[in-house]
Amino acid sequence: MPIPPYRFLTEVLKGQGQVTFMPSALTGLFFAAALFAAGWEYGLYGLLGTAVGTATARLLGVDRGRVADGLEGFNACLVSTGCAVFLGADRISSVLMALGGAVVVTVVTAALANVLASWNLPTFTLPFCLVASATTMAAPGFHRVWEGAAGTTALTRPATGATSLSWTQLWHAFFADIGQIFFMPQWYVGLLFLLGIFAASRSAGLVACLGSAVGIATAWALGSPADGIAQGLMGYNAVLTAMAVCGVFIVADRWSLGYAVAAGAAATALTAAVTSFFAPSGGHTFTWPFVLTSLVFVAAVPSFPRLRRV
Amino acid sequence: MPIPPYRFLTEVLKGQGQVTFMPSALTGLFFAAALFAAGWEYGLYGLLGTAVGTATARLLGVDRGRVADGLEGFNACLVSTGCAVFLGADRISSVLMALGGAVVVTVVTAALANVLASWNLPTFTLPFCLVASATTMAAPGFHRVWEGAAGTTALTRPATGATSLSWTQLWHAFFADIGQIFFMPQWYVGLLFLLGIFAASRSAGLVACLGSAVGIATAWALGSPADGIAQGLMGYNAVLTAMAVCGVFIVADRWSLGYAVAAGAAATALTAAVTSFFAPSGGHTFTWPFVLTSLVFVAAVPSFPRLRRV
Amino acid sequence: MPIPPYRFLTEVLKGQGQVTFMPSALTGLFFAAALFAAGWEYGLYGLLGTAVGTATARLLGVDRGRVADGLEGFNACLVSTGCAVFLGADRISSVLMALGGAVVVTVVTAALANVLASWNLPTFTLPFCLVASATTMAAPGFHRVWEGAAGTTALTRPATGATSLSWTQLWHAFFADIGQIFFMPQWYVGLLFLLGIFAASRSAGLVACLGSAVGIATAWALGSPADGIAQGLMGYNAVLTAMAVCGVFIVADRWSLGYAVAAGAAATALTAAVTSFFAPSGGHTFTWPFVLTSLVFVAAVPSFPRLRRV
Repeated sequence: MPIPPYRFLTEVLKGQGQVTFMPSALTGLFFAAALFAAGWEYGLYGLLGTAVGTATARLLGVDRGRVADGLEGFNACLVSTGCAVFLGADRISSVLMALGGAVVVTVVTAALANVLASWNLPTFTLPFCLVASATTMAAPGFHRVWEGAAGTTALTRPATGATSLSWTQLWHAFFADIGQIFFMPQWYVGLLFLLGIFAASRSAGLVACLGSAVGIATAWALGSPADGIAQGLMGYNAVLTAMAVCGVFIVADRWSLGYAVAAGAAATALTAAVTSFFAPSGGHTFTWPFVLTSLVFVAAVPSFPRLRRV
Repeated sequence: MPIPPYRFLTEVLKGQGQVTFMPSALTGLFFAAALFAAGWEYGLYGLLGTAVGTATARLLGVDRGRVADGLEGFNACLVSTGCAVFLGADRISSVLMALGGAVVVTVVTAALANVLASWNLPTFTLPFCLVASATTMAAPGFHRVWEGAAGTTALTRPATGATSLSWTQLWHAFFADIGQIFFMPQWYVGLLFLLGIFAASRSAGLVACLGSAVGIATAWALGSPADGIAQGLMGYNAVLTAMAVCGVFIVADRWSLGYAVAAGAAATALTAAVTSFFAPSGGHTFTWPFVLTSLVFVAAVPSFPRLRRV
Repeated sequence: MPIPPYRFLTEVLKGQGQVTFMPSALTGLFFAAALFAAGWEYGLYGLLGTAVGTATARLLGVDRGRVADGLEGFNACLVSTGCAVFLGADRISSVLMALGGAVVVTVVTAALANVLASWNLPTFTLPFCLVASATTMAAPGFHRVWEGAAGTTALTRPATGATSLSWTQLWHAFFADIGQIFFMPQWYVGLLFLLGIFAASRSAGLVACLGSAVGIATAWALGSPADGIAQGLMGYNAVLTAMAVCGVFIVADRWSLGYAVAAGAAATALTAAVTSFFAPSGGHTFTWPFVLTSLVFVAAVPSFPRLRRV
């Protein structure tokens, strides 16, 4: 049964917005603009992925409420954009992998949603992490997908490089932490994403800022190389984790605010662990630290009477 | 309480048949013949494993229905045969590891069956994958189990080798895809296995053929080296996945047929990822891609009203 | 609401005792003494961790019964002691990591307890394993946490070294198997831990001895290098597994005794596998083999009518 193009477009934009939990077409519009600002291919890959994921969910008859809220689009958006970033945006094989990945991640989303429902837990971006990790680990094994002879597997070595942050690195990091949610290191791209969050909810925007600050502070305190911090690589998980834990899945109050700070710091430390864990297999960190930390901090809530689930 | 030898023998043969979901003693007979055709030791290891697993389940009082259907034998069959293939068939230590593994995998099967029952999910060959992966990762650490100084750990590098399939490679691959379910690359062994499946169910045999074709087509399209495809290494997971998703756990119809094609393709791509993931620890791919893909595609069914669980 | 110092002290000591499942302040006193015997820093780190974990649980309002039984202390005790052992006891950064780890592991414990409750399964030391593994994998990425340029990631190679055990190695191993539960290889430290277990329960002490014997026998039979056996590295998981499976979570009788022997042997073999699995990422074995084996052997119980859960 065909649906009005306008409604489908709304679902796709909401799907983009759901990457940061915002079921808002306006947020999605900002996010699309930010991706196009980073590169027109990224903008197209993002929209393509969200559209394919949403359409697959419709075709398979997924609950209309989920589709209408954009919940069937955000993992596909990230899978597709990830294919552009990690496999090369200008290759026809990357487009096909993005299409296939967007279909498969819809099935993975349904499976995980059914399983995690036992504990009233959301899937976060776990479907994206699973499909994207499998894709990056598999890609070098396929000639038509992988270009060049360089591999991606490595054993991590102790970090080297300066740890003191310059003022420029600091404020770049603050915005890049938002941009890296979509793999983008440019500060102005991050700023557009942040504006998109604020467009949907001022409190969500403030918590995102808090998460970025916690990520930078934790990474600096632990002695993470400044270069990575400035590119937003150490803080994007803290942004998502703070938002999930304070406002989105747990009622925002004083207690959940402290809880979000702890969770953001934990996600930042976990970022280095996940990087080491996947490096030998050629995987990437993606949003695994956010997913794992948020699953734990949200699953723990029933034991902590001071916190209340939304 | 002793049981008639004839009934125990039937359970063991059904246990062999259950490797491809067929609770049929005739299928099991074909499978035993195929293993003996590959090497008499493999035939013996297979029967030994199935027998020990089935006997352990009986001793511990597992539900009679499961034992009678052969559901307590197939993981042990694969663990035992795997010990022969990966630790060396002619070593007494391999026999002991096969015995121990067959006992332990029975406990793992019970544990996973209890856990996965929460979502009405079967264990597939997950118990085998866990025990066999642990065995291959542990083996080099033990002098009496591991022969020689060569290790098994490595970082995977981008694939090399020709990707165009000759006609001989193509039809070898078609049958080897069935043989590799039991680790066997010979086309005639695969043919015997396929005949065993057809002996139990013509539709299951046809879906197995479809799965093999999907595996070959996907691997070729992605650019997998032809040599591995010809040995069946890229397609055996697609065979099992297609069978699980169309006919065994989901009612066979047009929708589940399309679902099986998607699942088979996903399992084939996942094969390269699993290989990269386990390579640094000295693990093997086994049927992990099948298990993970099938768990996801079957767990997702409640969200897709077009599909119906058996 | 403040609590009497005496009651809090009791909870902390019980928390130490719970590392080996004993909710006994006397056992905890023995364990603290053993840690101080190994080094006063270790004693302090242990008490600090248990205290912080217990206080965090109180602050967040965790069920009083759990706190009073010491169930909120033992994972934090191990995380904190692990920071001393693996990051260097005399560094201020290690103290801060221990504090942060003790807080986070309390949240992880709550999350896992809620999830595993679906199958009436305990968390064992899974929270500790997760936090400690993440910490050791992340640490080299942080300048202020990690000292020196030497990395921890490696591909495991086949074992070398003599496999025949001398009498001294044998009895050292017997006690070191208990000491390594707290990362300590000294036989007299292990002896103090064993006395602590006997102080709470004679039968638990005997099962611990059985577990140590099973671990040594299995490791020797498989051909594990004697040096590692003598340091207790191959047997500590068997000790904990045997205790969990015979007496603590399954009613002690003839059947569970045999079950404990099988589980102890499986945990010993699994030790080498876990070591290989985590080596490339710089992780450690910790008590993963115990946790995984015990989860499986306890989760399987409902399928085995001969065994009864406590």
